[in-house]
Amino acid sequence: MPDASLLGANVKALFFDVFGTLVDWRSGVAREAEAILGPLGYRLDWPAFADAWRGEYQTGLEDVRSGRIAFAKLDVIHRRNLDRILPRFGLEGAPEAALGELNLAWRRLDAWPDVAAGLGVLREAFLIAPVSNGNISLLVALARRNGFPFDAILGAEIARAYKPAPEAYLAAAAAFDLPPSACLMVAAHSDDLSAAAACGLRTAHIARPLEFGPGGEGESAPKTRTDLAAADIGDLARLLRATEESKP
Amino acid sequence: MPDASLLGANVKALFFDVFGTLVDWRSGVAREAEAILGPLGYRLDWPAFADAWRGEYQTGLEDVRSGRIAFAKLDVIHRRNLDRILPRFGLEGAPEAALGELNLAWRRLDAWPDVAAGLGVLREAFLIAPVSNGNISLLVALARRNGFPFDAILGAEIARAYKPAPEAYLAAAAAFDLPPSACLMVAAHSDDLSAAAACGLRTAHIARPLEFGPGGEGESAPKTRTDLAAADIGDLARLLRATEESKP
Repeated sequence: MPDASLLGANVKALFFDVFGTLVDWRSGVAREAEAILGPLGYRLDWPAFADAWRGEYQTGLEDVRSGRIAFAKLDVIHRRNLDRILPRFGLEGAPEAALGELNLAWRRLDAWPDVAAGLGVLREAFLIAPVSNGNISLLVALARRNGFPFDAILGAEIARAYKPAPEAYLAAAAAFDLPPSACLMVAAHSDDLSAAAACGLRTAHIARPLEFGPGGEGESAPKTRTDLAAADIGDLARLLRATEESKP
Repeated sequence: MPDASLLGANVKALFFDVFGTLVDWRSGVAREAEAILGPLGYRLDWPAFADAWRGEYQTGLEDVRSGRIAFAKLDVIHRRNLDRILPRFGLEGAPEAALGELNLAWRRLDAWPDVAAGLGVLREAFLIAPVSNGNISLLVALARRNGFPFDAILGAEIARAYKPAPEAYLAAAAAFDLPPSACLMVAAHSDDLSAAAACGLRTAHIARPLEFGPGGEGESAPKTRTDLAAADIGDLARLLRATEESKP
């Protein structure tokens, strides 16, 4: 672990991954799918449905990253991904109104319990913004629902590029007039942090062992070199405060 | 005045002009200029200096709107405008460090006294965002200083176009996934409101008779047709609440 005391002295902004890091997409998507499709008579393994939908995530984003399709908001990518898994769950005949509503499930996810309070503490000392692949309207809905006190909504829609493309991180730093080294990327995903570090950002890992459910592939610890590793957002605030206090 | 009861039923988001409408740029720029240049021995008519700097505003933006220069953040435009007026005030010899600091005066402006509380009330019923020509970092600084509880920072930097270009308004509506008719542009400037209305947005005028100082050209009333005209942001909240209550 690099010397943590170096960190607080220079970092001005914290950038947060959202799906998995701040909000529990798996439980939320499963709950929303059951609430929307259940009354229509569908009986699915709802968590498996959530996993399958999220399982198309990188494939869908790669269509944009590779240039195969023009940049489109994550809402659009989510819908393409949903359409792709419908046959797998016998949902080809589901009414369009229900599918449209289901596609907005990603706006109605709940935060992990440590997040709102932790962000409130961090905001006292740092600029805070999501640097997520979610679109602005989606992230505003999540922020409102969960009380995230973001200073601005940064990320893919601002950059018109999806993480882990370098532009997604660099556009966020540029929006705050900061060099990448003054920005700390916070995520529960080692690949996100590796890409941020390659752009010169500092990195903090958040443990989310239950992101993919019990026994799933949620990361309890970083698989890559990071500046910090925290148990949750409150723990990150404690680590950064310790860092501040250790300044000369 | 169109039927105000039509307004609340459809409007989901409020877009705010910032300089003049939410913050008092004239007093703030004059104060900051005196605080930075005074100790260096300069004795200027500080409000006249603020007026002169702001007087270059449209000229500076027109360089971008006309395509003469590529899009640049308002911070950059402000600095070009500052350099243009230096000779007029005998400031050609001012140290670069002081001028760089002075250029950030626009981040240290105070809100008109009705704004923070009014925005807090409006946020309970509407999405709220600045749709300003200010850049994201500048607007974040103003929001932090004055307690503006914006949902997102929209405006010129998102659109890469300066008001009154249509893209500036339309990009904001698109970011919130709303048709222009579901967005209310709020400004103390009739030309801003005319341009927004031409894009299909609803409009609300805020009276800021003191924007350009006592006896100046601040607008006490709209010079164009608007959906609403309010004395201040708190009054706008009252008008919109009245609108809500008059819904069938």
